[in-house]
Amino acid sequence: MSAVPHPTNAVLIGRKPVMNYVLAALRLFNQEGVEEVVIRARGRNVCKAVDTVETLRNMFLKDLKVKSINIYSEEVVDEQGKKRRVSSIEIVVSR
Amino acid sequence: MSAVPHPTNAVLIGRKPVMNYVLAALRLFNQEGVEEVVIRARGRNVCKAVDTVETLRNMFLKDLKVKSINIYSEEVVDEQGKKRRVSSIEIVVSR
Repeated sequence: MSAVPHPTNAVLIGRKPVMNYVLAALRLFNQEGVEEVVIRARGRNVCKAVDTVETLRNMFLKDLKVKSINIYSEEVVDEQGKKRRVSSIEIVVSR
Repeated sequence: MSAVPHPTNAVLIGRKPVMNYVLAALRLFNQEGVEEVVIRARGRNVCKAVDTVETLRNMFLKDLKVKSINIYSEEVVDEQGKKRRVSSIEIVVSR
């Protein structure tokens, strides 16, 4: 087992299935002992961030608290070098 | 012009393009004169709800305030009659 220490308490939502991020958050709480986990997502992954929190709460941590939810825009540069605004979300949860 | 009165101040996000919901919210503010607009979405439309708010803020109402963001789960019955949990979001905005 390689227990690579996690430098932060953040979970960045990407293309993997929701359960991967649920387990990542759970590991931060249980193995790293963090107090809060920050879940971040952009664009079409925003719904997956919400799903991660809800799955975490419904399946694993009944007493999970949503401390804050923030929505904002980020500028990204796409493959054509064009600037594009992407809607993002940051959810802070604690237990 | 058919100005059908809108009974509530809610915008329910569905399958249409984001701009439809942006304009619906804008119409509630400008024509119906409501103080707050409630934007609700479920499942994969959650990202569209966030996008609606961010587009509204970036393109039309610079001083738009996000008053509250709530995430929760709803139970829906799918075509096979199975109960399924769906992650949902409710964003209250005011100007």
